[in-house]
Amino acid sequence: MNRLTLALDVMGGDFGPRVTIPALSLALAQNPMLSFILFGDQRQASPFLNALPNDQLKRVQFVHTPHTIDANLPFMQALRKSKGSSMRLALEAVANGEAQGCISGGNTAALMGLAKILIEPLPNIERLALATLIPSMNGKSSVMLDLGANVEADSDLLIQFAEMGNIFAEVMLDLVYPRLALLNIGVENSKGTQTIRNTDKRLQLRNDLNYIGFLESDKLMNNMADVIVCDGFTGNIALKAVEGSAKNILSLLKRSSEGSFICQSTKRYLLRAIFYRSYRKLQQINPDRHNGATLLGLSSVVVKSHGGASTNAYFYAIDHAIGQIQRQIPDKISQGLNKLHQNL
Amino acid sequence: MNRLTLALDVMGGDFGPRVTIPALSLALAQNPMLSFILFGDQRQASPFLNALPNDQLKRVQFVHTPHTIDANLPFMQALRKSKGSSMRLALEAVANGEAQGCISGGNTAALMGLAKILIEPLPNIERLALATLIPSMNGKSSVMLDLGANVEADSDLLIQFAEMGNIFAEVMLDLVYPRLALLNIGVENSKGTQTIRNTDKRLQLRNDLNYIGFLESDKLMNNMADVIVCDGFTGNIALKAVEGSAKNILSLLKRSSEGSFICQSTKRYLLRAIFYRSYRKLQQINPDRHNGATLLGLSSVVVKSHGGASTNAYFYAIDHAIGQIQRQIPDKISQGLNKLHQNL
Repeated sequence: MNRLTLALDVMGGDFGPRVTIPALSLALAQNPMLSFILFGDQRQASPFLNALPNDQLKRVQFVHTPHTIDANLPFMQALRKSKGSSMRLALEAVANGEAQGCISGGNTAALMGLAKILIEPLPNIERLALATLIPSMNGKSSVMLDLGANVEADSDLLIQFAEMGNIFAEVMLDLVYPRLALLNIGVENSKGTQTIRNTDKRLQLRNDLNYIGFLESDKLMNNMADVIVCDGFTGNIALKAVEGSAKNILSLLKRSSEGSFICQSTKRYLLRAIFYRSYRKLQQINPDRHNGATLLGLSSVVVKSHGGASTNAYFYAIDHAIGQIQRQIPDKISQGLNKLHQNL
Repeated sequence: MNRLTLALDVMGGDFGPRVTIPALSLALAQNPMLSFILFGDQRQASPFLNALPNDQLKRVQFVHTPHTIDANLPFMQALRKSKGSSMRLALEAVANGEAQGCISGGNTAALMGLAKILIEPLPNIERLALATLIPSMNGKSSVMLDLGANVEADSDLLIQFAEMGNIFAEVMLDLVYPRLALLNIGVENSKGTQTIRNTDKRLQLRNDLNYIGFLESDKLMNNMADVIVCDGFTGNIALKAVEGSAKNILSLLKRSSEGSFICQSTKRYLLRAIFYRSYRKLQQINPDRHNGATLLGLSSVVVKSHGGASTNAYFYAIDHAIGQIQRQIPDKISQGLNKLHQNL
């Protein structure tokens, strides 16, 4: 890859530098042309920075700021208190061209608000959308948006999400004419809210999009669509429901097997073999690998990591940012939307 | 139990009499005082009726109607074509006092619409809500509503759902002062739509309800609340997402173990033991046992089974209807709401 510099909010997320620095170390090890500008509290970060190998330390520039935005602050308060914060400085580094992309695990509302203020939105973009790749049972991924940037969305906005998601899927998943669906509570055209039914009618008329109709939330992980569109409230509810359910069932299976008398027997290796196979399968749907939601609609790449991300998960968020920069996602979306607006 | 007669729409659901009749046979075997009035196509039902033991046949009255409401018909069309249908006749049997409750696996919108027309709604009830018991990891259940009766709900309606759900939880789960939560995309009071934030503020002021605040959808199965309230669109999306995720992961684990070389070995019994333990645990969160959503707000018990329910799952829907009739749910809700309205 070409030289690439990422701005990273070291303090963002539930675990701060304890997770973010080991994660960026994994990314540095994998990408020799990569470097970071880090923003955070030097005292808290030092023990983890000192653990980096020398060749990695050379590719890391640290900017000290003791100020962090509280993850739970309401949007307006977070914005008012953002000056000099690790998150804001990281976004400013992208805005002034020092870095090509930014990753943060901090306050989502603040990240979206600041990104929109500091980094230019693309032309023709009404509102940003939070998009992510969700895993499917067949090992493929689908693009899902919005995941919480807009708790309410009218038909115009849902259609813009569809257009952006379509381009994101073409570029990131190497798809031609990706299958596009609207998330709904049934597949019949009488189902859902007035907004969803209007959007459905409008999308039916679009020959430039491969619109396949409604998708129900029990099929989210079955790769029946490449792009799944919904408002941010619905997307957030659906995705967290899937995550919670998966987590609960896996922990239940784990506990059942751990408690088993068989574990205490010498045939423990059998159990391991089964679970190894299962876990390998589950790697495909491992939420860690899909950590990182992208703020679509900006002129630069900004990736939001899950606040509770592990080192491994945070590494994937960084990796997604790199992938999107390399594939020039903001340019591609801009060009795609321009072409659309010329044809309309 | 006292003598009890249920009206059953034999044709409703994806499998019709193939599932409904064996399921009611299980219910008859378990409850000697139970009898059924069945509505459906005699020709289709005969092979399954003929398989019933004699003592059960005596407790079954069959009313022939060749007419069934299509599961996918939009609401208004379904309503227009409902006359003489198995579903409508079953509801009429409740309305005219021949049966004390009704079960159907048919068109949900039609069932709700017809129930509201044919069976008197309780006083002070603005809109019906579809409520169900959802399983938790600790073996307990939570009440969740609405699951799709109202795709949109304002603050007044959400509060009525909370009041009805509260009484349902008290009576069906034997709880005192059940914990009540609003489903939302975060727990901070700045999160969610304007409607949800308004409802939150109003519920905070209610001393008669044990309101604990917002709940996120990844915690749906963790018994952190006894009553979970949301609009019908959100409830449907969340519940189907949980179901789909659980189903996918279980099928993945099953396939992983089946394909394993260990299965071909003589130590197959070990696998069985592990999965037996897991499955026993999973029984607690088995969706079959939680099949059956109740139309809350009516003066009689009407239970909607999942359209794709198995015999076992359909049996549980019948069982839930029996439990609600025995515990006089409609009366309890009516009394509870009356008391509330007197105190307000």
